[in-house]
Amino acid sequence: MELIKVGIIMGSDSDLGIMLEASKILKEFDIAHEVTIVSAHRTPHRMMDYATMAHTRGIEVIIAGAGGAAHLPGMIASFSPLPVIGVPIKSSNSIDGWDSVLSILQMPNGVPVATVALNGALNAGIIAAQILSVENKEIRNSLITYKEKLKNGVMEKVEKLKVI
Amino acid sequence: MELIKVGIIMGSDSDLGIMLEASKILKEFDIAHEVTIVSAHRTPHRMMDYATMAHTRGIEVIIAGAGGAAHLPGMIASFSPLPVIGVPIKSSNSIDGWDSVLSILQMPNGVPVATVALNGALNAGIIAAQILSVENKEIRNSLITYKEKLKNGVMEKVEKLKVI
Amino acid sequence: MELIKVGIIMGSDSDLGIMLEASKILKEFDIAHEVTIVSAHRTPHRMMDYATMAHTRGIEVIIAGAGGAAHLPGMIASFSPLPVIGVPIKSSNSIDGWDSVLSILQMPNGVPVATVALNGALNAGIIAAQILSVENKEIRNSLITYKEKLKNGVMEKVEKLKVI
Amino acid sequence: MELIKVGIIMGSDSDLGIMLEASKILKEFDIAHEVTIVSAHRTPHRMMDYATMAHTRGIEVIIAGAGGAAHLPGMIASFSPLPVIGVPIKSSNSIDGWDSVLSILQMPNGVPVATVALNGALNAGIIAAQILSVENKEIRNSLITYKEKLKNGVMEKVEKLKVI
Amino acid sequence: MELIKVGIIMGSDSDLGIMLEASKILKEFDIAHEVTIVSAHRTPHRMMDYATMAHTRGIEVIIAGAGGAAHLPGMIASFSPLPVIGVPIKSSNSIDGWDSVLSILQMPNGVPVATVALNGALNAGIIAAQILSVENKEIRNSLITYKEKLKNGVMEKVEKLKVI
Amino acid sequence: MELIKVGIIMGSDSDLGIMLEASKILKEFDIAHEVTIVSAHRTPHRMMDYATMAHTRGIEVIIAGAGGAAHLPGMIASFSPLPVIGVPIKSSNSIDGWDSVLSILQMPNGVPVATVALNGALNAGIIAAQILSVENKEIRNSLITYKEKLKNGVMEKVEKLKVI
Amino acid sequence: MELIKVGIIMGSDSDLGIMLEASKILKEFDIAHEVTIVSAHRTPHRMMDYATMAHTRGIEVIIAGAGGAAHLPGMIASFSPLPVIGVPIKSSNSIDGWDSVLSILQMPNGVPVATVALNGALNAGIIAAQILSVENKEIRNSLITYKEKLKNGVMEKVEKLKVI
Amino acid sequence: MELIKVGIIMGSDSDLGIMLEASKILKEFDIAHEVTIVSAHRTPHRMMDYATMAHTRGIEVIIAGAGGAAHLPGMIASFSPLPVIGVPIKSSNSIDGWDSVLSILQMPNGVPVATVALNGALNAGIIAAQILSVENKEIRNSLITYKEKLKNGVMEKVEKLKVI
Repeated sequence: MELIKVGIIMGSDSDLGIMLEASKILKEFDIAHEVTIVSAHRTPHRMMDYATMAHTRGIEVIIAGAGGAAHLPGMIASFSPLPVIGVPIKSSNSIDGWDSVLSILQMPNGVPVATVALNGALNAGIIAAQILSVENKEIRNSLITYKEKLKNGVMEKVEKLKVI
Repeated sequence: MELIKVGIIMGSDSDLGIMLEASKILKEFDIAHEVTIVSAHRTPHRMMDYATMAHTRGIEVIIAGAGGAAHLPGMIASFSPLPVIGVPIKSSNSIDGWDSVLSILQMPNGVPVATVALNGALNAGIIAAQILSVENKEIRNSLITYKEKLKNGVMEKVEKLKVI
Repeated sequence: MELIKVGIIMGSDSDLGIMLEASKILKEFDIAHEVTIVSAHRTPHRMMDYATMAHTRGIEVIIAGAGGAAHLPGMIASFSPLPVIGVPIKSSNSIDGWDSVLSILQMPNGVPVATVALNGALNAGIIAAQILSVENKEIRNSLITYKEKLKNGVMEKVEKLKVI
Repeated sequence: MELIKVGIIMGSDSDLGIMLEASKILKEFDIAHEVTIVSAHRTPHRMMDYATMAHTRGIEVIIAGAGGAAHLPGMIASFSPLPVIGVPIKSSNSIDGWDSVLSILQMPNGVPVATVALNGALNAGIIAAQILSVENKEIRNSLITYKEKLKNGVMEKVEKLKVI
Repeated sequence: MELIKVGIIMGSDSDLGIMLEASKILKEFDIAHEVTIVSAHRTPHRMMDYATMAHTRGIEVIIAGAGGAAHLPGMIASFSPLPVIGVPIKSSNSIDGWDSVLSILQMPNGVPVATVALNGALNAGIIAAQILSVENKEIRNSLITYKEKLKNGVMEKVEKLKVI
Repeated sequence: MELIKVGIIMGSDSDLGIMLEASKILKEFDIAHEVTIVSAHRTPHRMMDYATMAHTRGIEVIIAGAGGAAHLPGMIASFSPLPVIGVPIKSSNSIDGWDSVLSILQMPNGVPVATVALNGALNAGIIAAQILSVENKEIRNSLITYKEKLKNGVMEKVEKLKVI
Repeated sequence: MELIKVGIIMGSDSDLGIMLEASKILKEFDIAHEVTIVSAHRTPHRMMDYATMAHTRGIEVIIAGAGGAAHLPGMIASFSPLPVIGVPIKSSNSIDGWDSVLSILQMPNGVPVATVALNGALNAGIIAAQILSVENKEIRNSLITYKEKLKNGVMEKVEKLKVI
Repeated sequence: MELIKVGIIMGSDSDLGIMLEASKILKEFDIAHEVTIVSAHRTPHRMMDYATMAHTRGIEVIIAGAGGAAHLPGMIASFSPLPVIGVPIKSSNSIDGWDSVLSILQMPNGVPVATVALNGALNAGIIAAQILSVENKEIRNSLITYKEKLKNGVMEKVEKLKVI
């Protein structure tokens, strides 16, 4: 069995719909990962254990999504030496997403969270792949191919628009 | 020696100037308290220990101040059953205080932080006194006297303005 | 009959749906409370009477919800020595909730309102319970049990997600 | 002695510098007025008395300035049938003035406050003059002359700039 | 025929639904008024004529509603000596109403607009009535009665809630 | 004497320091222009005359700067068929520039203002040059040279940094 | 065949609905133009080519629409000497349009984008026509007629409202 | 000579003061890096070349800082397969940093930028180290030691505060 390289965690199962986009893109890049729920506020000990142990289990990157006063990514970053990618989620209790963005992005010196756009779980997955590509040049190549596909997708629409 | 009832903690010693206003008002109300630094991001284990043990040491209220992506109050609230009062601080790395306010205020259901105004440490001290007044009616009386003093302060200025 | 310990008030009956979440959680903690409408702007004398008399009737905590230019929590705090918990409500006339939040949170020195998240009435109820737990250790135990339940709720979802 | 027509009040003497601009312009229009401090939060009974009695004393307009969670203008409007002009003040405890503006402007249906720009006390004075001009056409004429003076002030600068 | 005292104007017929609330409340106070469309940007000469002539036609107050880059109230105020009440409208092209509010509220010294809450046309009508009450004490009495009705409306709901 | 092609106007002489950057860059491109003060709120008739006559005088582009509730650019655009470039100015009475930006940018359909960055008068001058380059290819060439100079400025700094 | 004078481009085909409003108004003014998709982020080389070549193909104005972190208009402006009109689009991934507006408007000195209102593609088309009217006085006349039509549209509604 | 692993680039030499914090922390971790100026808007071809070639030169991570309409990080990410860390800078032309943050953070699906706090260059350096630690466990150990030092720094302040 392949070693899990990326941990995708989220504060609540209501974030699952968005966070699975990270999982989907990692599958596309053939990167072994796990998906689970870790609540900073309701399961703080579980959160501490997850963050403290992740790198000892071979995990290389953690993707953490949360909304409102979103403390999960920052607290994971405070316990773990791994790169942590934060996904601000526009949850139902959020003030238009501003709280989610600011409470993930504005980390103090020494304890960074690599933050993506509001609801940007897909991009979090790509950053995870880019990080792993440092030691795995196959993933680097897949990323180059992925960029090619993005371009081709646009070019097809360019052609379609011409017809109209 | 009197039992410490209120713990005043902050994420960084740069917050000390503001947080001491909470200490000063508690002294005015003769309430035993402690002041220390507990960083959610740089000393997460200390933070967990502080939050987990506080109520076993007789502490009844925790006042926590932090700025930027301010996770200290919310994380204390996630480990402790005590009422936690959060003081958003307009620290140098904050975006005009908005990050501090939102990352303390917008806690999810089940894990509240009683939030005061930006830099409102003095008011955090008053809320702590109000909380303790539930079982100590002397403090209640002091609070009523304090309100009287606030009024008198205004009335003196009213008189001064008349002279002008 | 049990003495009422918590007063839950709101500026308008349109806030009732949200404010009843405070009532529900207080029932869970077996805390006697009342629910009524007190409008700072349409019934200012009633508001003054309510605030001035509450602590003489044995009430220990007031939870006040309001939206837009939300003056109810702050004005109650100006008349009463009790701890006042403010619930900013995203009412239909509010600008995305920002007015509700700022006009409750940003109280001047000397007259605090313990503010919760936008629409965070449930959390206001929990803070009220935490405040009463200072003199009633049964409520403290219920709060610890409540935290346990929050954790278990997450753990069940963790298990469900594993199956998927 | 001339009857006082306009009451200028403010929440704190720190607002005096700005609020005196309203007084100055009223003097220019020869309108009798008073200036005093009325704090909604520290002298709520005084505030209630002021608001309830103003119209019985012959006052026709109230100008109220306040900052932060600025409840003074709105509460005066809730007790008084008079037109109330609110001046949001960018006080030291305000979040860039947003709290002051929103907590004065966003009054609910039925209880309006005529709000001017942040720190716009001079304009509050002009609105008071415009209101009184409804029954005093001399003030109307003064307002027309005032507009002329504004224009001439600009035209002088137009000429100066030409020289350069 | 009664002389028209209040002019209600708006930038676009899409604002009519909201602006008619001002008309309705003026009818309740038996105040003669007119309702029409005056666009600052599409009919600037009409706007100039309206503003310049209004006070010569006996109009005493102008209520102007507009959304987005809302210049109508401010431009009317620049041409007319009358008190101008501005109603920021959350029109479809507005950024959550912020543009409407700021471009009406933040008028420069010398040319005020008495601004009400976002979509607050009803309150604009009440301010117009308050202004006219300076010379018409019947309207003053109606305003006092109106406040009484607001209070009674709340008290009925208080009673209903008791039954529940 | 060369025909004036660009009119640079501003609401107040306090905006002159910033607006002269537009004049300076136009001089660099050898484009004849005028600089004057036109206040939408204090000289509305002058503003109307300026806007109505500009294109009959041979002016091809108007650059208008204003701060706070900044109506000048939009009102000029409503009277004139010419392209109008708006410069939002962070004047002393502005709320961090947001009012200036929104009240210039958010014009309704049919009456556009080409808006530049806060205090971006230099860029307004460049857009004016770009507009005139449509019929004057010398200006087009100057613009291409200007871009070259921008690049060279950066490259010099690149070299300097290397030395360090 | 007529030479294409205006290029309308957008970052994604999901912006097409809004951007076609620019095309529609250009058709009304009989201005030859093209519409295509150019993504700054997914087809950066295509973007560079488009921007670099446009003026050599006879294009005189580029209208570029984009949402979120909207880099298309600014990057086109960095490669091309032509006037670039930016249309901030409130796309699904945008935070209420603020990101779109700020990342288009706030260009640095030397590289301007003429920005219109959020979703203001129609106005972008009008600015393009205004720019071309510098060398084509027929378009100038059409613009004057267009303003007339805007006025007449309002006047019809004024009449309709009278009937009611 | 050691291969350069991290490229630190910025849009303007005025960002150098802040961006050197990234360089300093990389030196602490003994990671070879280069620092240079690459302006997306003034040197777009240089930017394209830098981004296109970086991974062929052995660079594994790019840190890009920019302010205002900050397109550099996003455009680098569009040309390069490498992980790009964006540092929003509160430059003098920025609206309190909001434009810098939003135009870097809100990248569309497929082209992520790992964003840090406003002016958070030090944290960008740490993320770069975390990324390189995936293949270099010495850096991982340095990161663990670094966390230890952060903790010790706090603990020293805790001791100092005790003495007081």
